Amino acid sequence: MVKAEERVEHNSESAVFDLTSYLKQRKSLVEEALDRSLPVSKPEKIYEAMRYSLLAGGKRLRPILCLATCELAGGTIAMAMPTACALEMIHTMSLIHDDLPAMDNDDYRRGKLTNHKVYGEDIAILAGDGLLAYAFEYVAAATQNVPPQQVVKVLARLGRTVSAAGLVGGQVLDLESEGKTDIAAETLTLIHTLKTGALLETAVVSGAILAGAGAEDVAKLSRYAQKIGLAFQIVDDILDITATKEELGKTAGKDLEAQKVTYPSLWGIEESKAQAQELVDGAIAELESYGELAEPLRAIAQYIVSRKN
Amino acid sequence: MVKAEERVEHNSESAVFDLTSYLKQRKSLVEEALDRSLPVSKPEKIYEAMRYSLLAGGKRLRPILCLATCELAGGTIAMAMPTACALEMIHTMSLIHDDLPAMDNDDYRRGKLTNHKVYGEDIAILAGDGLLAYAFEYVAAATQNVPPQQVVKVLARLGRTVSAAGLVGGQVLDLESEGKTDIAAETLTLIHTLKTGALLETAVVSGAILAGAGAEDVAKLSRYAQKIGLAFQIVDDILDITATKEELGKTAGKDLEAQKVTYPSLWGIEESKAQAQELVDGAIAELESYGELAEPLRAIAQYIVSRKN
Repeated sequence: MVKAEERVEHNSESAVFDLTSYLKQRKSLVEEALDRSLPVSKPEKIYEAMRYSLLAGGKRLRPILCLATCELAGGTIAMAMPTACALEMIHTMSLIHDDLPAMDNDDYRRGKLTNHKVYGEDIAILAGDGLLAYAFEYVAAATQNVPPQQVVKVLARLGRTVSAAGLVGGQVLDLESEGKTDIAAETLTLIHTLKTGALLETAVVSGAILAGAGAEDVAKLSRYAQKIGLAFQIVDDILDITATKEELGKTAGKDLEAQKVTYPSLWGIEESKAQAQELVDGAIAELESYGELAEPLRAIAQYIVSRKN
Repeated sequence: MVKAEERVEHNSESAVFDLTSYLKQRKSLVEEALDRSLPVSKPEKIYEAMRYSLLAGGKRLRPILCLATCELAGGTIAMAMPTACALEMIHTMSLIHDDLPAMDNDDYRRGKLTNHKVYGEDIAILAGDGLLAYAFEYVAAATQNVPPQQVVKVLARLGRTVSAAGLVGGQVLDLESEGKTDIAAETLTLIHTLKTGALLETAVVSGAILAGAGAEDVAKLSRYAQKIGLAFQIVDDILDITATKEELGKTAGKDLEAQKVTYPSLWGIEESKAQAQELVDGAIAELESYGELAEPLRAIAQYIVSRKN
């Protein structure tokens, strides 16, 4: 764990770095790129369904992280933008499929009706499939000024992140744990690592790979990502209890109602908060060697524990 | 259309080339590679569901075509095998999702219960997602001795083939045409081009790209593939009427029962057979410059019209 003095120092650095403006500007860049990435074509219905969920807002944290690490490692925003968009396509696909009646059966997402409630189950399944496939096409076809072996590396990681060794495996474990009240913290962490952490880690690492980062930097950034990924999930569990539906843009208190095992249910809210803070401090410690260049990544880590939705 | 004398000549060449042994040997190579490509890991259930459909047999025509064009263009079987496996993962994924209750609602496929009938809808959706993602990972991570820019090209094509510009778009048009009895031949062909033709074309073309084939060869092989792809679909429609359930390994007469517009319903059986033969002759004509090297591709084209299932 990072010592208190260091934390204060980072906090004061973060105060200098204007994260709100940074996130707003980056989010706007990403939204524009996403809009351009998927123009409507025939058959219109499926493109509209894909765009409905892809352009439904959200924090765009994965693309923003990808762009940030690409810059940190000496690359440009342009080099990483197709991958940044692909990360959001993959994330959106996982939300569309998770919300289906055969899965979590959710009616609302980000304050809007879920994809299958608007377009029907058949189109929602296909919209997810289409987004997933297009994510790979887009990275392979639209990435420019990056050596092709680095593009291949990123595509391999993206694939692994969605596969049974990542998102899909995590969702299976999550479905299996439903209704069980004896889930251990280790199992909960494994589910979240696969379902949420893996994609965050790939977001962070792929930006660095595109910029040509070496193994040591990739390893440091991986550890940073693993820590903020888990902190993110702990905070999500806390917010499900403490935030309102308006703040979340989705049904609050859902975990409690479903008697789902969460970090607060295992550790209590205070201890969960402390664990999240410790992870974020650890994540920030991984960035020490980068100096000011890593300011966005430090501020994002702090934001993850302080966010209200 | 190719003249009758030429057709006879090709037929006699095919008699010299032992297609049955060739397909048997290649199918066995592909089956072994598929089995090795996806070992069971945790969570076992999802790997078992993926393997259940991936290893359920079938003609393995797409991987066999990919290996054949890679060899034709001067490459090796080893260079193309990961892509060959990926093509079958993608094909399998599209079958699993098409069979879902929200889509075509099929109980049997290749004489076995469909994936969701065995594992449930949730796992079937995830097994499809997992196979799709893994297909890209496998090509990116397992392809060896191929320049990375060629691997990137293949990945871009694979993505496009599944996306809303390919399989997914075709399935949407297919769902939209359900119950309609006024579908024109052009619409029917567009649906099949997207749903079936695109993946066959990618199978053929990706083998050549991996081997480093130039634009002219890729164009010739694309036309070959488009023609056999459409012929394949016409023959499928004919077999749905003329073959038995035992021959097909799936419900026969389904199109008639669903009052689906098919080539035989538009053109009659005899004209449909003639059109399929004309396409196959045209496909074979594209291969003229390759001499004996293209013998497998010629024999496969002939097989497509003469097959019984």
